[in-house]
This record gives sequence, structure tokens and C-alpha cells, in this order.
Amino acid sequence: MFRKILIANRGEIAVRIMATCREMGIQTVAVYSEADRNALHVIEADEAYEIGPAPAAQSYLKIDTIIATAQKSGAEAIHPGYGFLSENAAFAEACAEAGIVFIGPSAAAMSLMGSKIAAKQLAQEAEVPTVPGYDGASQSHATLLREAERIGFPLLIKASAGGGGKGMRTVARDDDFLEQLAGAQREALAAFGDETIFLERLIQEPRHVEIQILGDMHGHLIYLGERECSIQRRHQKILEESPSVALTPTLREEMGTAAVRIARAAGYVNAGTIEFLLDADKRFYFLEMNTRLQVEHPVTELVTGLDLVRQQLLIAAGEPLDILQEDVVQRGHAIEVRLYAENPEQHFLPSTGRITSFIKPEGPGIRMDRGIADGDEITQYYDPMIAKLIVYGEDRAATIDRLQRALQHCVVFGVTTNIPLLYAVSAHPHFQQGDTHTDFLEKHGLLNPSSPPELPDEALIAAALYEAQPQQGGESDNPWQRLGPWRMVGSDRIITYRYHEQAYTVSIRPSTHTASAWHVQINTETSEDIACTIKDGVLVLLRKGAQLTRLYVQQSKAEMQVALNGQLYRLQRSQPPDIATTKHGGGFAPTQKTLTAPMAGTIVKVHVHDGEAVEAQQVLVILSAMKMEHAIIAPYDGRVRHVHYQEREVVPGGAIIVEMEEQQR
Amino acid sequence: MFRKILIANRGEIAVRIMATCREMGIQTVAVYSEADRNALHVIEADEAYEIGPAPAAQSYLKIDTIIATAQKSGAEAIHPGYGFLSENAAFAEACAEAGIVFIGPSAAAMSLMGSKIAAKQLAQEAEVPTVPGYDGASQSHATLLREAERIGFPLLIKASAGGGGKGMRTVARDDDFLEQLAGAQREALAAFGDETIFLERLIQEPRHVEIQILGDMHGHLIYLGERECSIQRRHQKILEESPSVALTPTLREEMGTAAVRIARAAGYVNAGTIEFLLDADKRFYFLEMNTRLQVEHPVTELVTGLDLVRQQLLIAAGEPLDILQEDVVQRGHAIEVRLYAENPEQHFLPSTGRITSFIKPEGPGIRMDRGIADGDEITQYYDPMIAKLIVYGEDRAATIDRLQRALQHCVVFGVTTNIPLLYAVSAHPHFQQGDTHTDFLEKHGLLNPSSPPELPDEALIAAALYEAQPQQGGESDNPWQRLGPWRMVGSDRIITYRYHEQAYTVSIRPSTHTASAWHVQINTETSEDIACTIKDGVLVLLRKGAQLTRLYVQQSKAEMQVALNGQLYRLQRSQPPDIATTKHGGGFAPTQKTLTAPMAGTIVKVHVHDGEAVEAQQVLVILSAMKMEHAIIAPYDGRVRHVHYQEREVVPGGAIIVEMEEQQR
Repeated sequence: MFRKILIANRGEIAVRIMATCREMGIQTVAVYSEADRNALHVIEADEAYEIGPAPAAQSYLKIDTIIATAQKSGAEAIHPGYGFLSENAAFAEACAEAGIVFIGPSAAAMSLMGSKIAAKQLAQEAEVPTVPGYDGASQSHATLLREAERIGFPLLIKASAGGGGKGMRTVARDDDFLEQLAGAQREALAAFGDETIFLERLIQEPRHVEIQILGDMHGHLIYLGERECSIQRRHQKILEESPSVALTPTLREEMGTAAVRIARAAGYVNAGTIEFLLDADKRFYFLEMNTRLQVEHPVTELVTGLDLVRQQLLIAAGEPLDILQEDVVQRGHAIEVRLYAENPEQHFLPSTGRITSFIKPEGPGIRMDRGIADGDEITQYYDPMIAKLIVYGEDRAATIDRLQRALQHCVVFGVTTNIPLLYAVSAHPHFQQGDTHTDFLEKHGLLNPSSPPELPDEALIAAALYEAQPQQGGESDNPWQRLGPWRMVGSDRIITYRYHEQAYTVSIRPSTHTASAWHVQINTETSEDIACTIKDGVLVLLRKGAQLTRLYVQQSKAEMQVALNGQLYRLQRSQPPDIATTKHGGGFAPTQKTLTAPMAGTIVKVHVHDGEAVEAQQVLVILSAMKMEHAIIAPYDGRVRHVHYQEREVVPGGAIIVEMEEQQR
Repeated sequence: MFRKILIANRGEIAVRIMATCREMGIQTVAVYSEADRNALHVIEADEAYEIGPAPAAQSYLKIDTIIATAQKSGAEAIHPGYGFLSENAAFAEACAEAGIVFIGPSAAAMSLMGSKIAAKQLAQEAEVPTVPGYDGASQSHATLLREAERIGFPLLIKASAGGGGKGMRTVARDDDFLEQLAGAQREALAAFGDETIFLERLIQEPRHVEIQILGDMHGHLIYLGERECSIQRRHQKILEESPSVALTPTLREEMGTAAVRIARAAGYVNAGTIEFLLDADKRFYFLEMNTRLQVEHPVTELVTGLDLVRQQLLIAAGEPLDILQEDVVQRGHAIEVRLYAENPEQHFLPSTGRITSFIKPEGPGIRMDRGIADGDEITQYYDPMIAKLIVYGEDRAATIDRLQRALQHCVVFGVTTNIPLLYAVSAHPHFQQGDTHTDFLEKHGLLNPSSPPELPDEALIAAALYEAQPQQGGESDNPWQRLGPWRMVGSDRIITYRYHEQAYTVSIRPSTHTASAWHVQINTETSEDIACTIKDGVLVLLRKGAQLTRLYVQQSKAEMQVALNGQLYRLQRSQPPDIATTKHGGGFAPTQKTLTAPMAGTIVKVHVHDGEAVEAQQVLVILSAMKMEHAIIAPYDGRVRHVHYQEREVVPGGAIIVEMEEQQR
């Protein structure tokens, strides 16, 4: 076995490979870009070398630098992980030339399977079905019609020179073919100056099912069952599971032996994956081969009990496989979801920024593969995957239940994530019934940003109390100093709260909650209505009688985030902090007679009338400015002398909106 | 299925039961003592009720209170966990009377198996072997000799009224029997006034092997393979694994069917465990039955893929088992170790106190069941178990490798733990060979407190730098203020360090390290010798060139703890803080002319002579007082004018030990 290997990757996969290496007594060498100096994959290594600036092209993709680092460190082999150089035949070749073992297939096998056309031919020679089609030279309408009838309907007409859907037509029936063909050719000619087209059967709502294989250097090849990866967003898998509900033992064996035939024909060694499409009639078609460890390999590890990285290392070291095909047992069910830092409200663009807190679910059957620690940054340079959550259970239903619980206990503060989307998938009846296909997210409208369910009042109270908690600076004597009204983003609810005699009174207004005031005491045995405990800095436990609510809160200067049941809610200060600033020790001074607009805007709501008695922190007027709402609040118990504006009026910045006077007693 | 259940327990098992409940959509009710108000099992529940003061007899063992709480909360069933009321037939009875389902066997079956004599008889009737012996009325030497020959040698003679080894003799051979018998009878008569004895075969170095069974209300009983729990400290299991290396498939089936026969004879329903002793000749003997979920149940969950709590709930709700005996597949290997807060240097007494930081290992195949969060306290009221670490791997060797890695990455600060003992077991060649028996720890001397391996210099440097790190209070301008010499407990090494131009010079003295000074820079790209990064407040990453060392440091006022590779090291301030106190901004003032003894003690070492030039922070004299060593150090660069005492002299507190003068330049 190797004494030392270099891992030419970063993030969770590098960390995961190192875990197995350490168990096998293999020393690990990390490489890192300038941006990753203190990344988790460096911390987990025995040795680490900086290899260039943040952009991958200048670091993780630099073949010469990585080979030189391996030689310098005395690494005998390189594990490429996935992505980066993992399917780069030139890299595998360079390793071989430098006398370093590449942990993967030969450069030749990688090249062969890297060509879609060659791979498809190889599959056909190995008698594995591919998506039926026609890409011959003859473009006569007679030939094309004959071929179309052979292929069957519905089918796709695609421009050979094409891309982006131009020159592409879906033909549902025989009768429509020639008309659609002419249209496609005209479009192709206009777009690409070439009217050559090819035909392909349209696989409707297919499932993506792939087979994991392992092959050693001694000609032994086995398959380790399937993974279904149908839930995809723009061809990017986000949820993978094993087994697939669509496979019978017979079909599994057919697909498994087909995968092994392809791998054998390619002279394939090490771990690889054969991807298939599976149509509604359970016919499967070879799609392509991934000549590396897959992101979703843990799913196979959990259902087979094997450590795929360990197997990769054993194979690369020349060991014969000690697992026979009949020894492979798929047992139970496993599902992986990929946690991405991305923003559904901005077309799923990566949500870059610092992960301030990452709370991981715990419990039986939960595995988390991560490459990110608290304080690490999601940058634009690399894939914005935060972690993979993989759950195992007795059967599919129990595993989905476990996935839902795990997602509800998984919280990321600092960036926006796809956790709500993953939860929505796990909770979707069609997913739970196993009715999955590659168009699942689009078909069920799961990609449209949706508002989270209404946040319960208790959670708003928790947020208020979180802000009010005694700080280490000892400011707790004067809680007003840090308190201010908060506005819930996407809602008209505004929370205000006041502190009196060791108790907080929290009001949630306007709407129906105007009257709901809560007396809250922190950490006392004699809670009147709600008691609140804060643990680990982020976990807030609310008790209302014996009922418990557990949520997570994190606060920055102007924003508070509340995580509850897998949803993230945002609260914003409803007015600039300067108005909320304390004038003297115990509260606002009743000397402030005028309340002014913090910036130019429009009055959207006037809650009070002239002469009305108001309480400190009561919302008087709401101003809309810069696409945000700002509340003008009463700084002390008093009376409204005059409101200078009406609803829908535009006000300049600094304008006096409300005049106040002290309450006559 | 139940809508809501009460968990009459605390700690990790309550948390673990709640995890499965949540997945099954069952609401959970926690009960807690005054000491557990904010414990993890409360935080994880949906509803929680305080049931009494900290002592278990006044809270977790109060049958009436718990039943009343279940009724008040509307819980339909109670899960007792293990310990506390889990094997209390009166409790099971009380549940039945109150119309609440007890998640476990009937009170009758529990009572039956709770009596060791009745259980042994039942086993014999079920044709399951028990430890051969004789406890008949006839005490004639002729009868006893005949019975001894029937039982076979070696055997034990035990006093019927006995205990504490009195009247107990081990007889190796036939020839010695009568002589030993006479001696045992005399001893028994003297000790207990009763010379009645009984005979029992001596099972030498037995393995403890137990069989997990499940039985439903419809008469279906299955066994889920074995767990070997031979590694015990005073009959307390600390490491459990499955499968046992001692079992062949045939023996497993024999023991499994024997276990099912006993359970069937007892009319047993729900999860239970039949414990056996296994002798060197692979003969097994029924020991007892545990009529509840075991601490070590996760081992079975990992090798069978089943969720035992889920099965318990399904059975208790009246569902028929949907697993047939032939569906049960043991696959791979699993090992559990129990992390206890206990001190090997104090006869393994519980180490009570606050867990300030608990760093959990992560990675494939690692499960951690815990009931303790950072900041929680280990008290004298309850079992001092912190957590269970359970690892799964392809085979026993890979699983032991994984266990070792996990233990190296498991760190507990605040209390002393048995992690070094667990690591020593996992690393022991006899354990790795599977040569395990119930006397393992004693036989291999693993219970004797042993010093951890010498801490590498790098780790001492890390500790120094940890102390020197810029604090949030902004004291970083004046690093001297917080620096002081540290002495390693159990070693003569003393670390001093100084700060100059953004770099630390660390010296480790005396011994051979006097000359080893390191230039250290924090978090810069241009590290000269060693760079240091601190993450998450406790993780320290040291880089010496490309070599990385990863350790954990935590500091209290007078003690620093360093965790490295599963070992915990302690450093103590080598003198009272008042001497180290800064006199003015940039360092010690050279006005301090005399260095005095902080308390009465004995001079153990004088490192300098009169007139010697010394550097600031250099150790001059070591004083032993109150069983600790204190270093007298130079407060500034200067010269020793006079040392007033010699080695081995006794000094009163406050006595001038060294006179210093400023260096002439």
C-alpha cells in the first residue's frame, strides 16, 4: 500500500479521501490555492503546499505544479477526487510519465470514454442499448422519414451544428414529421449556416439511473448496484438515492451486467459509473461513463457497506478485488442531498460570503460530508457546495422521514442555501411516491422562489429575546441600548419590545397581532408566559408552559436571521439605528419632540391620529423607501401632537413626520 | 402508531429515542430533574415537564410522578430507555393500570427474567446450557466430590452465604478438591457462621457474547445476531462489537436459536438481550436476560441496518414484525466505545465538572450518540457517560482503524475522560487479534494509570501561541501581559516565550531543549520556522514548512490543556500570576531587584550562578511547594547579583531567593 499520497482537490471530497487515508495509515498531502490556505482540506492533511492563486486555472488545474508537488513531497500516488483534473487524460498521462500512480483508470480508457461518440459506439458493440437515433450522412427527406419511423415517435430533430435549442423540434406523430423537419432545417441554416440535422428518440420524463462499478488490475469487474439521480436542476444532480424504486432485481442485474460489459470493453480499472436513462417502459439507454469517483458515491457506500475510496486505493496499489459479485448486498435505503450556497430568488446564482455558523444535524443514520468550517468563505472561484447530507434508513419511507428531520436540523447562517428547496422535494407527495424524473423540479414548480410559511409569533419573540440577551460586555444593565423594532422581510409584521422589572413585553404589530403582548422572562423558574434559554450562542429554546420551540438565531448589525424547521426567515431593523439610539440611561428621553424621515420615501401607513396616546416603541407611521419599509416609532410613552403627512404622500428625507409631546399625567 | 409518547429517561438514550420518534411523526414528552432543566434531552423534546430534584430517587425513579405526567400530557406510551425504571416490573405494571403502553415486555416476563434463579431454570427447561454447578442441600464430602467430578475442573467453591471472595477457592485439579473444600468451609464458617458451599465451573477468560432478540405481540421472534462485550472494567462494558470473532455461522445460529427459545419460554415481547458466557472451547452458557434496550444497541443497528427503537415502537403499537429471520443480514463490522468522564488516576472515579468543549470526530462510518452539549455539567447524580462513539467498517481491521482515527479526533475539555484508555484498547495487539475476554483490561495492565507519550515541542509551542493569540478585548498590543512560563504536568519541561517585532521566541527548558528556540509568526505568509492558525477557538494548526500538526488547546486561568492524537496533556503556570504581572506597558521594569518565594517550599533546582547574565523569562530557580513546582524567572534581561538559597534548602514564604540587577551595556 502507498505510504503517502497527494489529493489534487479541495473541499468535502478532499477531506473525505483523507479520512480513509488516515485510517489506512497513508499520509496525505494537500495542495491549496491562496484562497484556501486555512481550508478544511488543508487542516485535515499531514502536509500541505500552496500551488497558486485562487482561480482554479492557476492552481487546482495546473498539471505541472501538482506533479512537481507530488514529487517534492514524495507522494507515490495522486487521488484526483471529482471535477478539476479527475477526467483529464493528459493529467493521468503526466502522472504515469512522472512515475506517480494516478488513482483512477488509465489515460487511454479515460480518453475513450471521454469521447461521447466513441463511448456510444463502444456501448453498442458491447450490446448495451443507446438512445435510438440517426446521424447519417444522407439528409434526404425520404431517408430521414424512414429513419424517423424506425426510431419511433415522439422524437427530437436536432441541428448537427446546433446548441441552445436552435434548430430543435419535438415531433409527436408521424404525420407531423416532414413539416417539422423542413422548419428545423430552415432554422438550422439560418442559425448555423448548416442545415444538417440528426434524429433522436425523445425519452419522456426519463429517470437518471447509474451503475457503480469497480474493476481491479487483474480483470475482475463488479457492479455495486444503482443510484437514481433524477432530481436535477439544469442537469445538476441535487438528490441521489439507492435503490431506485424503478428497478426490479432482474432489471438491476441487466443494467449491472451491461455496465460491466462496457467497462470491460473499455479496459476499465478502478471506480467508475455508467449513466443510463430509464424510460417509462423501463427500457434503459447508455448515456455516458464518468471515469472517476462520483459526488454521490456515499449513497452506494451506505447501502453496500463498502468504502469506495478504500477500494480505489487498494485497486490502485495493485490489490485484487476481494469482493465477488455475489458478495455485494444492497441493504436498506440511502439518500444524499447536496447543500448549495445559492439563491433561489436570484436564479440560483451562487450566494457568496462567509459561513458564520453551520449547524449540522446529528443522530442515527445521518452522515455529513463537508469541506467548510465556520468562518470559511464561499467564493466565486469554486463550486458553491457547502456539504452533502446523506441519510440511511430501513426502507425508502423511513429514509425520507429521516432526511426531513435532518434538513429541519440543518442550519447555515451567512449565505443563502437551497435547504428549503431540498426540504420541499423531500416533502413532495410525488417524490414520496417515487414518481421521479429529470424534469421533476420544473414540472412541480419547485424552482419558483416561494415564501416560507408564516413564522410563528414565538419565533419572533425568540428573535427579540436573542437581541436582548445579556452580552459579555456587561451591557445588560441597560437593555434599551440594544433593542429596537424589527421588521420581518416579506411580511408586514413589526416586533417591538420593552423591558421592565426583569421582564420583556413583546408586541407584534400591526395586523391581527396588535393586541398580543407577551410577558417573557429569561432563564427563570417562574416564567409567566414564555421562558427562553440561549445555548451555544445560536440555539434558542422557548418554553410556553411545557411546550418547547427550538430555533436558531443569528444577528448582524441590521439583520437578524431565524431558522425554524428548515426555513430561514429574515428580520431587518425597521429604521436607521440613529433614531433608536438611547439618549440617556434608562430609555428614550421625552425631550425628542419631532420624528423625521430617515430618507426620502412614501408614507404607506399611518397608524395613529392626532392627539392619540401612544406607548414607547409603538409603530406610528410606516415609510417606504429604497424598496424597504421603515417604521417611525414612538420614542417614549406620550401623545401624538400632529402627523404631518397622509398615506401615499411622498416625503423628502429629514422631513418632520410626527410631532410628539409628553403624556400629561 | 402512537401520536405522543413520554421518554422516562435522560441523556443520550432519551435523545436517541426522540430522534426516531420525530422521524415517525410521534411527538415526544421529556421529563427532567431540576439539574437537567436545559439538558439536551429537554431541548430535543416537543414538550417537557420538571419532575423533581436532582437525585434520581426523587425524579427519574418516581413512578407516580412519571405516570401522572404522561396522563397530563396525553402521552399514550412510555419508553423507559435503559437504567432507571426500564427493568422495574412495578413500573410496567403501573403503566398498564393507567392505560399507558409500556414500550417493553410485560411486567410478568420482566419479573420472571429479573429473578436470576427463575431465569436459569427457564433456560435449562428451554435446553439452553447454563454454567454447570451444584447447589444442593447435601453437603457431604462424598456428594460434593462426586458433583465436582461431574462439573469438571477447574471449578470454584463458593460460600452460599458469601461475598467479597471469602470462602471462595479455585480448584485446578481433582486431587486438590477435598483439601480446598475443607479450607473453604472453615473460612465460610468463620466469616458467615455458615459453612454451606456451592460449586460452579470456572469459566476461564470467558468472552461475553449476547444475542439481540425482537418479539412481536403475534408470537414472532427473531434474533439479530450477536454483540461481543468482553472488554469490561469491573463488569462495566466499555467496548462492544459485532460480529464476535469467536462465532462461526453455526455457533451464531445455535446461540441465536437458544436465545429465541428462552424468549419464547418467557412469553417475551419487544426488544431484549440474552447474555452468554463463551468459553475457550466455544461452549456457551446462559448468564441472564436484559429486558430492555441495551446501551450497545447501535452496534446491532449498524451491522443489521435496522433501527431498534423504530422496531420497539412498531411492536409496542401492536404491529407484526415485518422482518423474517432469513431477512436479517449481518454485514460489515461495528464497534461502540463508551466515553466516560472518569479519572484513571483516581480509581476511575467520575470526573465531575462542566464540559467546556466537546469536539466530535466526523467522517464516513462514524456515529456519535450523545446527551451532553458544550457547557453542560457532569454531576454526581447520574452516570458519567458523555457519549457513545460507534464506528462501522467493511471488516474488523478497517473498523478498528476507523475507531482509532475517530478517538484521535475526539476531544473533551473540562473533565477527565477515558479516551486514552479506549485508545489503548483499540491499539492493543491482543485486541486487534481478537484475543478478547472479560479479564482483558486487568490482564494487560490497561487499568494502571500511565503517562501519555511525551508531547512534541510543536505542541508546546502551539500552547504558548494559543495563550498569546490576540484576544477580543484588544490586549494584543501588549502580549507580555498575558504571557507567562508554563510547566508541563508530569514532566520537567518549562516553556517560556517572548515577543519581539511580531514574532515569538519560544524556549523549552531545561533538559536537552535549552537551546531550542523557535521563531514563530502568527498567520503570515512568510513564516520563518513555524506558523500558527487558530480556528473555532480551540483548534490550533501548526505549520513547520509543509508539515502540519493539528491539536486542540483550551486555557483556564492557571491551566492549559492540549489534546493531541487522543491524549490530553496539562500545563500549569509555573509561578503565581502576581510575579508575572506587567509593571508597565512594554514589559517588566528593570526596577524589580528581588525575586521572592510565592509560598513556603523547597528549592529543587538552581539554574544560575551569581554574576550570570540572564534573559527575560529565563528560569532561574525552581521551588517545590504544595506538591507543585514553581519557577522563579528573570523579569527582564539582566544579571543575577546573588542567589540566596541552594538546592534542597527550605525557604519561608516571601523570602528573597534571587537578587537581580540591570545588565550593564
